[in-house]
Amino acid sequence: MSSFWNHNITLSVFGESHGASIGVVIDNLPAGEYIDTEALRTFMARRAPGRDKTATPRFEADLPNIVSGVSRGYTTGTPLAAFIANTDTHSQDYSNLSTLARPGHADYTGALHYKGFNDVRGGGHFSGRLTAPLTFAGALCGQILERRAIYTGAHIQEIHGIRDKVFNPITISRDELNKLTHKHFPVIDNKKGDKMILDIDKAREAADSLGGVIECAVINVPAGIGEPIFEGLENSIAQLVFGIPAVKGLEFGAGFSVSKMLGSQNNDEFYVDEHGYVKTYTNNHGGILGGISSGMPIIFRAAIKPTPSIGREQQTVDMKNLTNEKLTVKGRHDPCIVPRAVPVVEAAANIAVLSHMLLYPNFK
Amino acid sequence: MSSFWNHNITLSVFGESHGASIGVVIDNLPAGEYIDTEALRTFMARRAPGRDKTATPRFEADLPNIVSGVSRGYTTGTPLAAFIANTDTHSQDYSNLSTLARPGHADYTGALHYKGFNDVRGGGHFSGRLTAPLTFAGALCGQILERRAIYTGAHIQEIHGIRDKVFNPITISRDELNKLTHKHFPVIDNKKGDKMILDIDKAREAADSLGGVIECAVINVPAGIGEPIFEGLENSIAQLVFGIPAVKGLEFGAGFSVSKMLGSQNNDEFYVDEHGYVKTYTNNHGGILGGISSGMPIIFRAAIKPTPSIGREQQTVDMKNLTNEKLTVKGRHDPCIVPRAVPVVEAAANIAVLSHMLLYPNFK
Amino acid sequence: MSSFWNHNITLSVFGESHGASIGVVIDNLPAGEYIDTEALRTFMARRAPGRDKTATPRFEADLPNIVSGVSRGYTTGTPLAAFIANTDTHSQDYSNLSTLARPGHADYTGALHYKGFNDVRGGGHFSGRLTAPLTFAGALCGQILERRAIYTGAHIQEIHGIRDKVFNPITISRDELNKLTHKHFPVIDNKKGDKMILDIDKAREAADSLGGVIECAVINVPAGIGEPIFEGLENSIAQLVFGIPAVKGLEFGAGFSVSKMLGSQNNDEFYVDEHGYVKTYTNNHGGILGGISSGMPIIFRAAIKPTPSIGREQQTVDMKNLTNEKLTVKGRHDPCIVPRAVPVVEAAANIAVLSHMLLYPNFK
Amino acid sequence: MSSFWNHNITLSVFGESHGASIGVVIDNLPAGEYIDTEALRTFMARRAPGRDKTATPRFEADLPNIVSGVSRGYTTGTPLAAFIANTDTHSQDYSNLSTLARPGHADYTGALHYKGFNDVRGGGHFSGRLTAPLTFAGALCGQILERRAIYTGAHIQEIHGIRDKVFNPITISRDELNKLTHKHFPVIDNKKGDKMILDIDKAREAADSLGGVIECAVINVPAGIGEPIFEGLENSIAQLVFGIPAVKGLEFGAGFSVSKMLGSQNNDEFYVDEHGYVKTYTNNHGGILGGISSGMPIIFRAAIKPTPSIGREQQTVDMKNLTNEKLTVKGRHDPCIVPRAVPVVEAAANIAVLSHMLLYPNFK
Repeated sequence: MSSFWNHNITLSVFGESHGASIGVVIDNLPAGEYIDTEALRTFMARRAPGRDKTATPRFEADLPNIVSGVSRGYTTGTPLAAFIANTDTHSQDYSNLSTLARPGHADYTGALHYKGFNDVRGGGHFSGRLTAPLTFAGALCGQILERRAIYTGAHIQEIHGIRDKVFNPITISRDELNKLTHKHFPVIDNKKGDKMILDIDKAREAADSLGGVIECAVINVPAGIGEPIFEGLENSIAQLVFGIPAVKGLEFGAGFSVSKMLGSQNNDEFYVDEHGYVKTYTNNHGGILGGISSGMPIIFRAAIKPTPSIGREQQTVDMKNLTNEKLTVKGRHDPCIVPRAVPVVEAAANIAVLSHMLLYPNFK
Repeated sequence: MSSFWNHNITLSVFGESHGASIGVVIDNLPAGEYIDTEALRTFMARRAPGRDKTATPRFEADLPNIVSGVSRGYTTGTPLAAFIANTDTHSQDYSNLSTLARPGHADYTGALHYKGFNDVRGGGHFSGRLTAPLTFAGALCGQILERRAIYTGAHIQEIHGIRDKVFNPITISRDELNKLTHKHFPVIDNKKGDKMILDIDKAREAADSLGGVIECAVINVPAGIGEPIFEGLENSIAQLVFGIPAVKGLEFGAGFSVSKMLGSQNNDEFYVDEHGYVKTYTNNHGGILGGISSGMPIIFRAAIKPTPSIGREQQTVDMKNLTNEKLTVKGRHDPCIVPRAVPVVEAAANIAVLSHMLLYPNFK
Repeated sequence: MSSFWNHNITLSVFGESHGASIGVVIDNLPAGEYIDTEALRTFMARRAPGRDKTATPRFEADLPNIVSGVSRGYTTGTPLAAFIANTDTHSQDYSNLSTLARPGHADYTGALHYKGFNDVRGGGHFSGRLTAPLTFAGALCGQILERRAIYTGAHIQEIHGIRDKVFNPITISRDELNKLTHKHFPVIDNKKGDKMILDIDKAREAADSLGGVIECAVINVPAGIGEPIFEGLENSIAQLVFGIPAVKGLEFGAGFSVSKMLGSQNNDEFYVDEHGYVKTYTNNHGGILGGISSGMPIIFRAAIKPTPSIGREQQTVDMKNLTNEKLTVKGRHDPCIVPRAVPVVEAAANIAVLSHMLLYPNFK
Repeated sequence: MSSFWNHNITLSVFGESHGASIGVVIDNLPAGEYIDTEALRTFMARRAPGRDKTATPRFEADLPNIVSGVSRGYTTGTPLAAFIANTDTHSQDYSNLSTLARPGHADYTGALHYKGFNDVRGGGHFSGRLTAPLTFAGALCGQILERRAIYTGAHIQEIHGIRDKVFNPITISRDELNKLTHKHFPVIDNKKGDKMILDIDKAREAADSLGGVIECAVINVPAGIGEPIFEGLENSIAQLVFGIPAVKGLEFGAGFSVSKMLGSQNNDEFYVDEHGYVKTYTNNHGGILGGISSGMPIIFRAAIKPTPSIGREQQTVDMKNLTNEKLTVKGRHDPCIVPRAVPVVEAAANIAVLSHMLLYPNFK
């Protein structure tokens, strides 16, 4: 009823930022899928902290330890459990715990919900660190999809008002997605990327932070995958993407810009291509109609808020004494988590798509 | 696994646009809640077709027939089932069925998913008509919430680029929400509403259609309601709102505009008010932090695409013969479904909030 | 969270004995399955009241009205909703309602659970009448299984200590199952059946009632269907069978008699038969090992308690005044519901088996 | 969809007998519950192997390592994950793997289900070892229940036809349950216990094994807990108890003996006791009516088959070559797992009861 996702694949995410370890149990993966641990490591590294000066200097290997569900390198089909030890936590004791609610964090809401019993160190269960097991699960699912020629990729669409090019929702290719995966700062237009990096640097210097938008594409999903109404591809992606802390918006295809369009502009006309495949000339629907894949690229965008932990003084409350106080958040924080969130968004997409794919009668 | 929503409250929505009837089973409503059928009727009427020239001239009573779960006017606590008969369907036979996929509709994706066995008349299970049972369920939940002084309301935020005022996310009051509920065309700024109506008229005359954005608020939700990660208030609202056909985007609080803000701008600073309540000076978080309510108004926006059924000729494919064809969609269609979608969005919010509220230990 | 079963197929059962109607929504049935309504009617008739003097003289057609999910005679793949009107209820008003808890019924526990708001007429949501929608769902699933050569049948194993022959768990055939289906009083040994009928008659004359045991078999289920631990075939069958009011016990294969056996007696040795199929010489495991089908007949037995409504005076309490009282239950009641429960038990088996079958990669 | 149990509390059990570790994630435990680790250890020790000569000589500490969801000794309310390392596995490599299906085991059904990719060493995911995390979860739930004065206990009801006394289903007390908990061989009548031990010894000497029946009681559960139809207390207990390998039968209250009783014998008459509490004179209903607790002791019995691993030669098949073969299972095996299964059955009861209790409005 809380930190698990129960579709066809089920995820049970656990852990607190400064607890013993975090991790995930993934149930209902198909049996007999080879796990490429080197590729897993590379995928996870894209999310890992400490990559460069755009990110927090907290270094952690963050390599998940798979304890079940894999045998001789292949998935067994039984639940796959993995955990990541918290090795670099800097706060093994509770003595210095603040009762000041950090603005933009779940400190206050979590304390109410859990009657003050939750582990608040480093954000506890609400920490961005909990995206590591999600990323791991999505990396696994991505390997299974790639073997069926389904590819996922994402880029930073916007940071602080600086906008990258958008994906061409018709022609987006495996090569383009792959190129982004290998970029340290994944944008299509590197010049825009350089500007973003400059703005992130400025924000860091000002002890401030920045948010942004990530655009994600999944290509080659066969048409007909998904379900109507509450269990469509959009619903499943939404439930997972809003499970990433800091996400405040999600749109598919033309998204919010549909409010400016006529039906004759927004409708994607169908045609049969030279190979006999049904396609659409445009892709405002983002590859999903009625919750079900159309065979066109799946395209969505997620809005990520600026890191709430900033080094500037802010007004807040002492939750214990109910007094008004000032707070300057100390410690190591990313001035912009958008770059590290890119693989997390891809991971969410992979999990949703694979989960629906497995219900597809012809899945092999 | 498809057309049901399984949280604490569960919904099982069924029916096809031109089948015998549509409806919903709602499980786990609290026992002993009075059902105000007159208020239900009024709520449902806001979604009903045929209200005026902005909407389709298809007239239907659309009054749900409650067959279980209510006794002597009060919920029994056992599953509440309600049916709405399809009385005005104009297509009792299948003789005139087209195999042309309507652009922007789920005709093509549905045919693939259901191997051609789904009922395609009027969109079948994918029809906007299936929002009637959802609206009914949300109207019921809203009555239960109102008895706890929790109020929901929504307005048309934007149509065809014309933008209404936005809710004041701090001061939004029951009166303001109530006023909107009673408006025929629910906008805050009537002048903007008049312009929208003009544009809708133009679109109708041009055999075209328009989309828009709906903004929804829920006030007085106690702080501490919700769950972390995959079952937060945002995830639950998202799963329901993306269950409304034509929704292509969803954002909470500052939403996509976070990509332009600094952390110091976006963070909502806390304070203790004169009554000892913890509040925030601003409400960019939209009343939800870490999936859990903060006590501030819950604010979100949903993007609705233009009605895909338009009277203009469009290119499409014959799904049977796999040939390229032309199609002019005939029949009765709303040039803009945004006004009728307003209570549907409120309904989705009511269901999500009540479902989480019922898990709240102090719910009475 | 209550009256629905959520596996791969989902059931949402609703209704009260004397309400407007009862019914079920069945989600995730495969598309394109022909519905043989005549066979449905025949299956339902086996459960229907008023068949003969062993049953209650309450006559009802009990024919379910399918309102969605079927088009031109075939399942559409979208939710199938069906309801059965309550036409012969004899109690359209609440004036004569007793506050005396009937012994053996859920009157007292239901009143506490629902804070007195549940509809108590005729047992309300707890009535045996709610097995009609379950039987309907199971009849549908049975038709889909039969098309894959999987057959289900059951017989009365015991009533009032009189025991029928048991199924031969190795050789049980379609013909034997089919013969039972057509028997008015389904026993293997008709002489034992005659004795049971005599005892039921005596119980009726004494204003008393009798319980019994039903044995059910499902043959030709392919080996490999099911899941480990909590979602195995045994768990799924158990969750459904204990959903039949009056069931107080359930055993698979050798069942409770394993407590008298040595491992060397209970273990079913494997062999490869002349066609290359793996089989077991004995079938104490009841066709299920580790939650997963072995290919041998699935065999289970359910214990059904005597009808709690009896015409003899009993001691009970007035739930309102908390006083000790005497009660003689009036009205029409089966002296033994075991014969009518036979198709209900088969139905539960069909639903569980089909739900697991649909997850089988080779299901067609 | 397989090794997790999803009610209000959710369990996600993972691991293989000879893998790195086994464990469980428990979600939705209430926040603020003290964890008595010493009591946990004592509870787990009752299930642990190697206690005496009635059990397998495999020694393992089996102490779960809690890595999340507990802070400063109290539950945080977030998911509680615990791992148990597999330290004494004797088979770190796969070289000696047999393709002979052990009779009575899930070797054959598992190989089919998982297409040969499952880890078969020691039974893999189907091993009785997987009951350790279940026992851990149930021990935790039991501590939370005990704080509300709800107590669970069980005894060996029967082994090899030797029957212990049964619980008095009316007067069973905390003291009696507690006494059983502290017995090395938990029976009410020690003389019968001695006979059972003798028979187990004989079975061991004969390289054979024995099954039995366990009777479990939960006292002081408030009346009104549970749900109707598919989610009643009986259904929940059944889904968990059939998750224990080797369970082949389950009965509540009078259970299978209802088939010999008249309604007037089986019905439990109600009365108001001197303190104003509603009770029943007898308890054939086992404390549950219509899926909901009556306030009387909850009583159920589970049948456990003889350990399938026996040292006697048996006929079986080579799953790879599809040939008929002989097999003598080697290694360390309990001649009777019934004594070790006693706390596992209690654990299942605790989980089901607590999960339903948490939905009770007055739970504190």
